[in-house]
Amino acid sequence: MANLTLALDAMGGDFGPRVTVPAALQALASNPQLKLLLVGNPETISPLLANQNAELLSRLHVVPAEHVVSNDARPSQAIRSSHGTSMRIALNLVKSGEAQACVSAGNTGVLMGLAKVMLKSIEGIERPALMTVIPNLKQRKTIVLDLGANINCNSRMLVEFAIMGAVMAEYIVGVDNPRVALLNIGEEESKGLDNIREAAITLRNAPAINYIGYVEGNELLTGKTDVLVCDGFAGNVTLKTMEGAIRVILSLVKSPGSQQKKSSWLMKLFKMKIVKKWLLKQVSKQFGHLNPDQYNGATLLGLRGIVIKSHGAANEHAFKAAINQAIQAIEKQVPDRIAARLDAVLPKSE
Amino acid sequence: MANLTLALDAMGGDFGPRVTVPAALQALASNPQLKLLLVGNPETISPLLANQNAELLSRLHVVPAEHVVSNDARPSQAIRSSHGTSMRIALNLVKSGEAQACVSAGNTGVLMGLAKVMLKSIEGIERPALMTVIPNLKQRKTIVLDLGANINCNSRMLVEFAIMGAVMAEYIVGVDNPRVALLNIGEEESKGLDNIREAAITLRNAPAINYIGYVEGNELLTGKTDVLVCDGFAGNVTLKTMEGAIRVILSLVKSPGSQQKKSSWLMKLFKMKIVKKWLLKQVSKQFGHLNPDQYNGATLLGLRGIVIKSHGAANEHAFKAAINQAIQAIEKQVPDRIAARLDAVLPKSE
Repeated sequence: MANLTLALDAMGGDFGPRVTVPAALQALASNPQLKLLLVGNPETISPLLANQNAELLSRLHVVPAEHVVSNDARPSQAIRSSHGTSMRIALNLVKSGEAQACVSAGNTGVLMGLAKVMLKSIEGIERPALMTVIPNLKQRKTIVLDLGANINCNSRMLVEFAIMGAVMAEYIVGVDNPRVALLNIGEEESKGLDNIREAAITLRNAPAINYIGYVEGNELLTGKTDVLVCDGFAGNVTLKTMEGAIRVILSLVKSPGSQQKKSSWLMKLFKMKIVKKWLLKQVSKQFGHLNPDQYNGATLLGLRGIVIKSHGAANEHAFKAAINQAIQAIEKQVPDRIAARLDAVLPKSE
Repeated sequence: MANLTLALDAMGGDFGPRVTVPAALQALASNPQLKLLLVGNPETISPLLANQNAELLSRLHVVPAEHVVSNDARPSQAIRSSHGTSMRIALNLVKSGEAQACVSAGNTGVLMGLAKVMLKSIEGIERPALMTVIPNLKQRKTIVLDLGANINCNSRMLVEFAIMGAVMAEYIVGVDNPRVALLNIGEEESKGLDNIREAAITLRNAPAINYIGYVEGNELLTGKTDVLVCDGFAGNVTLKTMEGAIRVILSLVKSPGSQQKKSSWLMKLFKMKIVKKWLLKQVSKQFGHLNPDQYNGATLLGLRGIVIKSHGAANEHAFKAAINQAIQAIEKQVPDRIAARLDAVLPKSE
């Protein structure tokens, strides 16, 4: 890989440069080929670069930006007034070819909207989608899309999501012949909304896709499928519900036992601070790979460039994970793979 | 309450009379006013009634039915060929006034379809809905509807669901001025599908409804709202996802620790059978009230009669809980309350 340059929106997210700059330095330290364009306010960024290793700094360049897209901006307005924002300048570096990918922890709707306008969709992709990777019970990973970029989807869009998800499962997760399923409210062919049933017919007849049928929400974490395809409304509902259920249960584990009156010798043991702490650690070990704090980064799929959205609340570790996702997407040439698979499954009619 | 007679579809569900008959006898024993019409095959039912208390048997009457609706039948076909089935005869007893409510663990789609045709909707209700009650973190209960009876909903239907849900929260759960929310993919007013945004406007302007806005899937278990309104597709996705997440986590708790190599004294303690068993009991105590096995019964709301759908896999205890739900709905006069509230929120235009 001759050139590996990322544009980072240094100002985006809940913590801005306090998180993005240390994460950038860590990423540079672990990737000797990596170059970073840090887009943001030099006055805020520079102090965070003081006394850092000169070799790392030689591969980091600050690109000034005067404005920031606010986290709670309405996309339509924010896109119109996005000139001079760190997000727009970072995307523009991808458009101009100065960077091969962009990473931002900023407003999702604005990032998606701006990326569509500036980078354009891959030919044949009706609407780009937001995708994430979640861990599953089989110690593997499940690709889920769309997560909310498109709340009304026709069957063609669902088929495109299936193709993009399969490419990601194959090249990013590393699954051979990944299983692809549609999220539905029953497993019988007759179930569900028209667009889902129509997409099922196309996918069943596509030899380049390993389509396994419908799955229901209760299979989200079981690893029954490698790729789970749904419209953005259902995708958001299932992911948020899963995150909520896990958080609720973890909170119960962390504050157990207020209702127990009788204290047996075992109970007394469990009330010891050191034992409680140890127990919590064991539980976290079990649940850690399902904890939403442990994974980060949604990929905007279907664009001619690579754009990764980090959680707004990401810490250094999580933002670095999003940077690594961008590097992987560059190395695996995700947009080209999607274009090629699209031609194989949905050949152009002309 | 002068007359309290229920029609039970004794043949429905995965276990039929083996579960429904003992549950019926238990319900009779705990409700001296209750009378039950047990609809099904007398040859299968009679042996299960042998040697039972004569007083209980005096309040139980077997109504013969030759057929059973199969669990995997397609609703349209099954409804056409439903004559002589225990489900149809049970619903007919409600229609004729011989029973005040019907309970069935049979095929949900067929039960909903038949109930609509036979009992008709309350005037002003466009489409009946399927509703359930789930426990929440605040040790209270949340009403969720629709769960899959209506996968395409216009805004008027969502408003009707809100009204019906509020009535249930008030009279069945016992919450004063229950909070009502719409399930959406963000909390801002501009978010989501057109039908949801339109329903929000109507609900905001309805003084008889304590509308609190949008909530996301991660709030399903937190108790942020007393009534959660959604279309049947989203309702099914959120409930199934929640059930799946809880099952996955419980399965992790039940088989923990295979990856631990080093055995500390604490680890050794935890590997002792008695300690494992105790620990599992503690965890179940914490999670029990969120475990999907612990609640049962969906109510078909918006009909002129009372129909309760028990889980197909319900055991005696769970089927008795569904019978109790039916009794409560009779005592609280649910259909009349819904009709009255409907007039208050959505007065007839004529």
